[in-house]
Amino acid sequence: MNDKEISSAVVKRLPRYYRYLGELMEKDVVRISSKELSEKMKVTASQIRQDLNNFGGFGQQGYGYNVEYLYTEIGKILGLDRHYKVIIVGAGNLGQALANYTDFEKRGFRVVGIFDVNPRLIGMTIRGIEVRIVDELETFVKENGVDIAALTLPKTKAPQIGSDLVKWGVRAIWNFAPTDLNLPDDVIVENVHLAESLMRVSYNLRNRERELEQEQVLAGMEEK
Amino acid sequence: MNDKEISSAVVKRLPRYYRYLGELMEKDVVRISSKELSEKMKVTASQIRQDLNNFGGFGQQGYGYNVEYLYTEIGKILGLDRHYKVIIVGAGNLGQALANYTDFEKRGFRVVGIFDVNPRLIGMTIRGIEVRIVDELETFVKENGVDIAALTLPKTKAPQIGSDLVKWGVRAIWNFAPTDLNLPDDVIVENVHLAESLMRVSYNLRNRERELEQEQVLAGMEEK
Repeated sequence: MNDKEISSAVVKRLPRYYRYLGELMEKDVVRISSKELSEKMKVTASQIRQDLNNFGGFGQQGYGYNVEYLYTEIGKILGLDRHYKVIIVGAGNLGQALANYTDFEKRGFRVVGIFDVNPRLIGMTIRGIEVRIVDELETFVKENGVDIAALTLPKTKAPQIGSDLVKWGVRAIWNFAPTDLNLPDDVIVENVHLAESLMRVSYNLRNRERELEQEQVLAGMEEK
Repeated sequence: MNDKEISSAVVKRLPRYYRYLGELMEKDVVRISSKELSEKMKVTASQIRQDLNNFGGFGQQGYGYNVEYLYTEIGKILGLDRHYKVIIVGAGNLGQALANYTDFEKRGFRVVGIFDVNPRLIGMTIRGIEVRIVDELETFVKENGVDIAALTLPKTKAPQIGSDLVKWGVRAIWNFAPTDLNLPDDVIVENVHLAESLMRVSYNLRNRERELEQEQVLAGMEEK
């Protein structure tokens, strides 16, 4: 298996395959054809075959895919066959929401620390993890070997904390602050920009209205 | 301006332009060249010129772009020149986090209702909005003309609530539940799948390791 040749478009679809296969396993489905998978996922069957062929193709002619095997293999490719130490910086609602997702832990992402500047939050525990003051961040990161830091803090503070974390050894940043972080190229940054997601909604709503207006104009012209 | 011809790739970049221009306005920057904008955004200057030409090109040779004008025009294209009524279904941490984002309100997305099934949360207020019992959802949606519903509830409940909301008149769903909603094609669905985002992080971490391993193998071969 040569991972180097997998295109980023395929990589983008893998988590979705993984999620579907997980759902099938929960329903005790043992095998599935690319046709069935295609109907469920609303992707063409040939797209699925092509995507999965990237990994040597786990399907067998006339049998389809073994759900558990495919799930496990895709999990390995996604790096889910190991554990990651995660910290959350910013213990507001969003940070608490992330800390409370038991699904993340099931997939190997273990929250080992939660930090905040707000003294009122310090000492609170979320799923057994105590919120610490942000001053302890440096020592904690250096001593614990943190893999991923989720930044759920205001955009004014994110760039500085982000580069500090990287300096102290964090390898990947999951950034929820609505700003870009300027970090070295070898740092993995995954942005979740909620405001931008919401703007895609308004764009699409506005666009739908424009389409309806145009249809009405056309209908009006036909009447004349 | 013919919006129909704007490609989805350009549309995807617009919220980011909008965010940068907003930051420039906060710093009282009046105009900017495509070169400067390109350095800030890490996109090529020619890409920027090409993108903005889609809207008739707001730049002037030798002057650059008028920041406020461009910000306003892109805002219009994104449908941010109007107001949207938003409800949040699921008043847990994530729902509360969304309700607390004052940035959304500034851009025209006004939270008018928050709903939950948990009786312990009912009556709690978030930024002046009382959490209501989910039984009141139908009447509320029909009486208030809701544009967007954010679903911050468990994946087992999201598909049913999603299709009910659409039946009652909601036009767009901002879905945070880790499942796909099977809704009619004319409904706007924007998914925020946090687990998939986190899997992209682990994939990239794993991939970086594979690259390092390969480099070590190659270095070992050279030594021989």
